[in-house]
Amino acid sequence: MSQQTNQSWGGRFSEPTDAFVEQFTASVNFDRRLFHHDIRGSIAHATMLARVGVLTLDERDAIIQGLGEIEREIEEGAFPWSVALEDVHMNIEARLTEKIGITGKKLHTGRSRNDQIATDIRLYLRDEIDAIDAELARLRDGLIELATREADTIMPGFTHLQTAQPVTFGHHLLAWQEMVARDHERLRDCRKRVNVMPLGAAALAGTTYPIDRHVTAELLGFERPAENSLDAVSDRDFAIEFAALASLLLMHLSRMSEELVLWTSAQFDFIDLPDRFCTGSSIMPQKKNPDVPELVRGKSGRVYGHLMSLLTLMKSQPLAYNKDNQEDKEPLFDTLDTVKGCLRAFADMIPAIEARADSMYEAARRGFSTATDLADYLVRAGVAFRDAHEIVGQSVAYGIEQGKDLSEMTLDELRQFSAAIDEDVFEVLTLEGSVAARNHIGGTAPDQVRAAAQRARDALSALMEARA
Amino acid sequence: MSQQTNQSWGGRFSEPTDAFVEQFTASVNFDRRLFHHDIRGSIAHATMLARVGVLTLDERDAIIQGLGEIEREIEEGAFPWSVALEDVHMNIEARLTEKIGITGKKLHTGRSRNDQIATDIRLYLRDEIDAIDAELARLRDGLIELATREADTIMPGFTHLQTAQPVTFGHHLLAWQEMVARDHERLRDCRKRVNVMPLGAAALAGTTYPIDRHVTAELLGFERPAENSLDAVSDRDFAIEFAALASLLLMHLSRMSEELVLWTSAQFDFIDLPDRFCTGSSIMPQKKNPDVPELVRGKSGRVYGHLMSLLTLMKSQPLAYNKDNQEDKEPLFDTLDTVKGCLRAFADMIPAIEARADSMYEAARRGFSTATDLADYLVRAGVAFRDAHEIVGQSVAYGIEQGKDLSEMTLDELRQFSAAIDEDVFEVLTLEGSVAARNHIGGTAPDQVRAAAQRARDALSALMEARA
Amino acid sequence: MSQQTNQSWGGRFSEPTDAFVEQFTASVNFDRRLFHHDIRGSIAHATMLARVGVLTLDERDAIIQGLGEIEREIEEGAFPWSVALEDVHMNIEARLTEKIGITGKKLHTGRSRNDQIATDIRLYLRDEIDAIDAELARLRDGLIELATREADTIMPGFTHLQTAQPVTFGHHLLAWQEMVARDHERLRDCRKRVNVMPLGAAALAGTTYPIDRHVTAELLGFERPAENSLDAVSDRDFAIEFAALASLLLMHLSRMSEELVLWTSAQFDFIDLPDRFCTGSSIMPQKKNPDVPELVRGKSGRVYGHLMSLLTLMKSQPLAYNKDNQEDKEPLFDTLDTVKGCLRAFADMIPAIEARADSMYEAARRGFSTATDLADYLVRAGVAFRDAHEIVGQSVAYGIEQGKDLSEMTLDELRQFSAAIDEDVFEVLTLEGSVAARNHIGGTAPDQVRAAAQRARDALSALMEARA
Amino acid sequence: MSQQTNQSWGGRFSEPTDAFVEQFTASVNFDRRLFHHDIRGSIAHATMLARVGVLTLDERDAIIQGLGEIEREIEEGAFPWSVALEDVHMNIEARLTEKIGITGKKLHTGRSRNDQIATDIRLYLRDEIDAIDAELARLRDGLIELATREADTIMPGFTHLQTAQPVTFGHHLLAWQEMVARDHERLRDCRKRVNVMPLGAAALAGTTYPIDRHVTAELLGFERPAENSLDAVSDRDFAIEFAALASLLLMHLSRMSEELVLWTSAQFDFIDLPDRFCTGSSIMPQKKNPDVPELVRGKSGRVYGHLMSLLTLMKSQPLAYNKDNQEDKEPLFDTLDTVKGCLRAFADMIPAIEARADSMYEAARRGFSTATDLADYLVRAGVAFRDAHEIVGQSVAYGIEQGKDLSEMTLDELRQFSAAIDEDVFEVLTLEGSVAARNHIGGTAPDQVRAAAQRARDALSALMEARA
Repeated sequence: MSQQTNQSWGGRFSEPTDAFVEQFTASVNFDRRLFHHDIRGSIAHATMLARVGVLTLDERDAIIQGLGEIEREIEEGAFPWSVALEDVHMNIEARLTEKIGITGKKLHTGRSRNDQIATDIRLYLRDEIDAIDAELARLRDGLIELATREADTIMPGFTHLQTAQPVTFGHHLLAWQEMVARDHERLRDCRKRVNVMPLGAAALAGTTYPIDRHVTAELLGFERPAENSLDAVSDRDFAIEFAALASLLLMHLSRMSEELVLWTSAQFDFIDLPDRFCTGSSIMPQKKNPDVPELVRGKSGRVYGHLMSLLTLMKSQPLAYNKDNQEDKEPLFDTLDTVKGCLRAFADMIPAIEARADSMYEAARRGFSTATDLADYLVRAGVAFRDAHEIVGQSVAYGIEQGKDLSEMTLDELRQFSAAIDEDVFEVLTLEGSVAARNHIGGTAPDQVRAAAQRARDALSALMEARA
Repeated sequence: MSQQTNQSWGGRFSEPTDAFVEQFTASVNFDRRLFHHDIRGSIAHATMLARVGVLTLDERDAIIQGLGEIEREIEEGAFPWSVALEDVHMNIEARLTEKIGITGKKLHTGRSRNDQIATDIRLYLRDEIDAIDAELARLRDGLIELATREADTIMPGFTHLQTAQPVTFGHHLLAWQEMVARDHERLRDCRKRVNVMPLGAAALAGTTYPIDRHVTAELLGFERPAENSLDAVSDRDFAIEFAALASLLLMHLSRMSEELVLWTSAQFDFIDLPDRFCTGSSIMPQKKNPDVPELVRGKSGRVYGHLMSLLTLMKSQPLAYNKDNQEDKEPLFDTLDTVKGCLRAFADMIPAIEARADSMYEAARRGFSTATDLADYLVRAGVAFRDAHEIVGQSVAYGIEQGKDLSEMTLDELRQFSAAIDEDVFEVLTLEGSVAARNHIGGTAPDQVRAAAQRARDALSALMEARA
Repeated sequence: MSQQTNQSWGGRFSEPTDAFVEQFTASVNFDRRLFHHDIRGSIAHATMLARVGVLTLDERDAIIQGLGEIEREIEEGAFPWSVALEDVHMNIEARLTEKIGITGKKLHTGRSRNDQIATDIRLYLRDEIDAIDAELARLRDGLIELATREADTIMPGFTHLQTAQPVTFGHHLLAWQEMVARDHERLRDCRKRVNVMPLGAAALAGTTYPIDRHVTAELLGFERPAENSLDAVSDRDFAIEFAALASLLLMHLSRMSEELVLWTSAQFDFIDLPDRFCTGSSIMPQKKNPDVPELVRGKSGRVYGHLMSLLTLMKSQPLAYNKDNQEDKEPLFDTLDTVKGCLRAFADMIPAIEARADSMYEAARRGFSTATDLADYLVRAGVAFRDAHEIVGQSVAYGIEQGKDLSEMTLDELRQFSAAIDEDVFEVLTLEGSVAARNHIGGTAPDQVRAAAQRARDALSALMEARA
Repeated sequence: MSQQTNQSWGGRFSEPTDAFVEQFTASVNFDRRLFHHDIRGSIAHATMLARVGVLTLDERDAIIQGLGEIEREIEEGAFPWSVALEDVHMNIEARLTEKIGITGKKLHTGRSRNDQIATDIRLYLRDEIDAIDAELARLRDGLIELATREADTIMPGFTHLQTAQPVTFGHHLLAWQEMVARDHERLRDCRKRVNVMPLGAAALAGTTYPIDRHVTAELLGFERPAENSLDAVSDRDFAIEFAALASLLLMHLSRMSEELVLWTSAQFDFIDLPDRFCTGSSIMPQKKNPDVPELVRGKSGRVYGHLMSLLTLMKSQPLAYNKDNQEDKEPLFDTLDTVKGCLRAFADMIPAIEARADSMYEAARRGFSTATDLADYLVRAGVAFRDAHEIVGQSVAYGIEQGKDLSEMTLDELRQFSAAIDEDVFEVLTLEGSVAARNHIGGTAPDQVRAAAQRARDALSALMEARA
């Protein structure tokens, strides 16, 4: 073998790899973060090979011990990573052979880097999904608790960012909870498809060695071996599906962020975020900026971008493995890091939100938020809805002119627009009356909010138990 | 009420809508395709309103009969659609009131266009998902049958588009089947989340009328009412989740398309597509172009774009409904049309593929596709894998120079590189020997392919029964 | 020729196109909008062919007259479009041959649909770019005029949506103007690259007829013929470059929209949009919704999606024309329609914005917006900036506690924090003093705003003259 | 000042930043790569401040010397980067103050981190654009030279990946050159808009200090100061415009890559890539994989993703600076690194491509590539084109049946289909005759290719001189 050519595939080559190309095509700088899972996969593979007689028990033990030592070296920062060895797999295999000699080379029997990397990523992603699952539960829990606390707090509900109808702050928080509950479900659905084992597909067609894939799958906690070797080495659906659900999650967090930013503005002044979640300005001494929600809002772009990157990557690739696939890792890793960071920040911050109930109430009192209640009142008094709508529209026009909200008008003023209005109208024009009247499943009435919070709590518990 | 202002919300307004703005903001040109589902939702709503006493039975019956007439008018192209009436809902309601008078206006009691449109889209999407589900099953069935037929047909397997190892054509087709089987699963998971009812959320906070959302949900076949009114009117996750799974599906179809295009090229010549799926050139008389796979490959961009469009749309929207949301429909509708068209074309075309088995076999015979088998042979003869790899690499270099594949060399020629090679080597160098040796679950051996096809058939049946 | 097979390429085919495939692959339903440009290109082509002697003058005249008649038929809705004829080109050619006989078929000499469609799209896009150019100028003009009018109107400037420093509304509007000025420049740069002629590239390699491409280019107003035939028929850069600049433009419009929506909320109440640009609610009689900016904000997603669609489409396509390219038209057309609609709506609406100057002023007075001015005052009095920042920070903390802005504190209160503060501090704490002090190019001082508006006006005039 | 709170904005804050939030919101880990440009901007700022009298000459000199020392510390890896100091700016400023005392704090007079970061990125991007410009020139040069060398080499031209007409390899390479020439132009257009100076916008509204922005702009080589302070601190168009042109460039490189991958396959076998640009397989000893083009093809997804990320980031942001904007750097930096790496790899690799001329020629001979020439021949003999097309279509059908290309048929065989065919037909059926006949600007005739190569060379020279 020529010394000048790469040791793992030199025989057929007449010149060494160009120095820049070696660096350009190497992946070890980012795939090294898979080392735990690479080693875990190798131990399972060696165990299976010994089980079917391809390795002796002594060989197996030497391999497992060598890999254990290597894992510690890496953890301690003592491992000599080499770009010339391309990737995490060859780095570890080369070190293993240094340590235990020729037996180290036998570890690669019946597998290929194509099925190995696909297995490593799935193992890694599965662990990360489980960590994210826990953070999602923590965030949902925080939302449900805060919603319970704020079940009676009245704020203006908006459509088109115009005051629409009064709602309770607890109801608004439970809307957020519903969003992330769907993300949670999608995460579980995705996990099922992640948890399938490519190992045994070898380079693309399977192997001639008498491997037992069910054994390896069981050792690694996979639900089953992948059904088709060509698909197994070239499938990156799991990364895309995860990036898609992460995009939905970040979209939800960006919506919450937008509202948090609005609410902390001087104009809204609906909530206060503790100083520890904010930063100031080096120039403007009065500033207290909601950096965390702003940054999370911005990070939605990052995750959308990774999703698009992965979809583009796989577009029109012929079977089976192509080098393009090496580009799957960085977007996936960064998506995972971003999701974990954003969820942690939100799960920490949400319970610390302080509602400015007076300010919310005052805002709801303005803006004719009970106009619909007045229309409904008229309907109950026998006016057709369409006519009631017109009557209230005229009252509102009058109110804008006079600078008076509906509840601030006298009965006479109100009766200008319809004789059907009577003294009891003022009950329906209160904010408390308005919210309490929306008293059905999904409605904003405080009792409904408390009941919904309890159902949400139960659903979350059931989900977390299903996992355990 | 001023004649100049929009009849549904004129009271508060002092001037009519600008003519261009009216047209710019109207949605009836595209949301009219929801008319069946809008009417179906209205009938269920009226039925529920009568059940809880908000409508009389006579009112209910008048509404249902009027809506039935309108549905027929639309189907027959006799309906007077009006842009001034903005959307499908107001067009139908206005017509209903023309037909049955004041009672028509009562239909809108206890709901709003915000929950109505969200309900319509979900009903529509649910039906479309079911149609797509059936087409997916048809495509999978075609793939499984063709794979069974071609379980013994040998072709070169590629990695990096370089000849890698021989595989069977049936095995390759089952790799495709695995891809779309995952899409099928994702479609079912998505359907669960689509099948939740927003109706009753009204504008954003619920309604003061004594509605019974469980009744409506049951009438419309929804699994349950949505838990939170603010979320119900602003959630568009279902459209995004569908677009994401559609992107994955189109990515898969683009991969198949890429291979179909390659295979019909003069250079590959692996398959023949019947003339009826191809088109010619107005200039070049010899051309027979694989238009269907090319077009499907191109359509992946269209669906990716819609996904990005929807994700961008929802980014940072505050609760609850905003006008931005009107932009959800066109991307979703076009995604559905595209998915249905592409699936239909593929489900029709796949069974008509004719393999050029001789051409595939000949290609597999060239390109040293059994080099790995030779290396494995040497390993079984006691050579370390890494050394075996080097020996075979040198044999290949010699073969390239001499223009001979491995199986075309004499024993003496092969023994130049290793004395461990013996007469029996020629068995492992045959294509048939090579594929048969990959005889484990997921491997390319013909028997494995037949077994995998059977498992795929069973899985598909089970899925389709679960639906029924 | 078989009657059953497509007339333009039937000879080599043994069966007709599948009915669904015919419809699935046809483009006439969307490419028919190119008819003017297709005919214009054909007339130029025929003129050139006659110039070089491939057509007789009589043939040329017959073709030109026939095409003129067809153009009128199409304009009048009397043209018999046929999906079986695939596209706009074959529809027109077939009709021409019906009209003028065999000579009609000669029109296609020396060209192909591949270079024809590329030429049509470029001609069409060039006209649309010119229309958009004019709308951009109208919008910029409206912004400059409004900025001039509001050069002295004080509002709070925000960073992080927190009150930062007072600015003038005119200054804010000129920031918008700068954004679209860049879009305008990019549009002009793009037009240069659009205005290059593919015609003459024929199917992919040029033609054997003695064509003169310079003649055709001149007749069609193209700057030059494309340099390379393979590139000419497969290049879609122009569509992508346009979609990219359109995405930037829509991003800018979405930013303006976001602010318009914020400013019309009850919480900000900075501006009023005339009723004719707003819509109401069918349920909530008090609502006046800023539909136009909301819808434009939503349409950013649509255009981003088309950009992604086109980039994906062209990814990894081998030369030269592939059927995938047919998918270029719908995203491009919809991008053009969207851009034109949004610009028109904005150019109409911007001049109609009514500033609520009192409300803006009041908001700027709150929120400690002159805190930086106080710090700068202290620096001028010899305090180090970092210490001045700390002093003002403490004053603000005191002000929040006491519910007083800086300018509302007594001198004694202010002097608690620094003895360097004197009577003259109240001048710098006025909003007028604050904005006037930022008196350099790019600063918010009213005089600077007026000067900047004048420069903007001059730059726009220069650009529009350069075009003429 | 409390020790617990951040030193740059502590005064107003009552508790220190949460430890995780500090890390989550810090940017120093990625913005430190701007240190050269940050220091360069600071030196220019200090120089200007001294020019207008805000700093003394001694202060200026102390600052410049201190910054010089810091630059060296960073280059030598001796700089104590601190996450607690958030970003590159505060890290450098804090170190400067350590070194030169209170004067260090004066450097920030009249600027803010908002205009500082915008200036840093533009300076950095401008330098990177210039480096990319040079690599683009090198790539174009390599393409032009190779095209000149291969001006007579005949290969099959494809449409729909079906053999269409013979072209020359030089012509194909010049098509690639045209693509990147457009990218080059776009890069220059983008550079104009990058080269505008935000500095002086301060936090958002300008500053009260008597700065002279023209001086700073000149010192930093900017064409002019930005016209509007609000726009200056919030504009990220330059990053998006660059990402858009980078996406087009990567799209082009992905198209070239696709063809390189096809051409190195056993099925095409049109070119050879030197071993130094390829890698092998650890399992399959015969493999030589075109890793570089595959990886570049994959990297198109990465850059598309960053474009989408940046567009999403800026969507709907209100003025002026928001924390979201911190997310602009990583996508931009990675886009720059990717573009530089891919261009370098291509500029190195392209000149090393070895054409397999025999193999190309042989492929062009098959596949009826001269069918159009036969049709054109018939037209010259008086047959209408449409009829000629039909005749040739039948000849091709016959040829497929008989396994003979057109040029392999006897005259009698050809005359079966048309009596207009004569002995001289065989001239037009040669590949050499076919390519030579496409002899007009943009056509594939070898003389045209040589002329086009010369024009391309001249255009490139002119462009590079315009820059110098």
